[in-house]
Amino acid sequence: PSGRSGWHHRQWLACRRSAVAAVLFQQRMTVYFEDIQLGDSAEYAKTITEADILMFAAVSGDDNPVHINQEYAEASMFKTRIAHGMLTAGLISTVVGTKLPGNGTIYLSQSTKFKAPVRLGETVTARVTVTELDPAKKRVKFATQCLVKGNVILEGESLVIAPSRPV
Amino acid sequence: PSGRSGWHHRQWLACRRSAVAAVLFQQRMTVYFEDIQLGDSAEYAKTITEADILMFAAVSGDDNPVHINQEYAEASMFKTRIAHGMLTAGLISTVVGTKLPGNGTIYLSQSTKFKAPVRLGETVTARVTVTELDPAKKRVKFATQCLVKGNVILEGESLVIAPSRPV
Repeated sequence: PSGRSGWHHRQWLACRRSAVAAVLFQQRMTVYFEDIQLGDSAEYAKTITEADILMFAAVSGDDNPVHINQEYAEASMFKTRIAHGMLTAGLISTVVGTKLPGNGTIYLSQSTKFKAPVRLGETVTARVTVTELDPAKKRVKFATQCLVKGNVILEGESLVIAPSRPV
Repeated sequence: PSGRSGWHHRQWLACRRSAVAAVLFQQRMTVYFEDIQLGDSAEYAKTITEADILMFAAVSGDDNPVHINQEYAEASMFKTRIAHGMLTAGLISTVVGTKLPGNGTIYLSQSTKFKAPVRLGETVTARVTVTELDPAKKRVKFATQCLVKGNVILEGESLVIAPSRPV
């Protein structure tokens, strides 16, 4: 088959879309609703440092000793200081806010299950994968995960409104 | 009626419980599962400053311009820079991590609906209210809200394990 409905045309569209997406991702701009497809995915990875935990404690006011007191934390079930769960969860919003969809995203909701703690120095990969698209409302639902060395330490769902491509 | 099931005994228990809670809250320690009742509530309030937004951007990597670029934000639907939604949501975890139940809390899950943006300089009150108690698993479910000037700008649920009173 050939023409606008043919295999080559679909391949060309897919290629163009991924090239556009690659550029947009580099520039941290916007992936418009019209260019988002089921199964699309994006990631953000970050090593969680001592400075992050101190800054998150300052920002949130959460100075629970399991985060800021090494001696207390060593005596706890965690055996060492751990990151605030909501710090890890924040990496999910980084992906939707800077990568997919990126600029112009309106964040509607987030659910998170905390499955395992994150220790200082561990590198967390936050990943979002499109599971539902609502063209009428321009809503995108993502399955969201955070992983450390391949183990899922947080999972949930994001719901956002993606900006539309300007006409 | 009198005795351990009477009105005075219940009043005395309530009084003692609130006195204990008041002291614990001041010292930011633990409210044990056995001392938590349906309807118990705790709050944490904080003014969201420019420094908070910059620190949260650094911690999370979320440098979406609606948070850090005043000119971009003025041209957006929000008309000014707004806080990261997960920064506001983080105040919920501050309440459960430092007040109710406080030290020793194990955070299992959090859901959040973002209902309105938070602007620089606005003061957010995060409030948790006990809605379910599971004595077998020591689990506490909270209805959670964040308010600005009495308006609910975030709502959701927390599920935690509260530490047990040492015997």
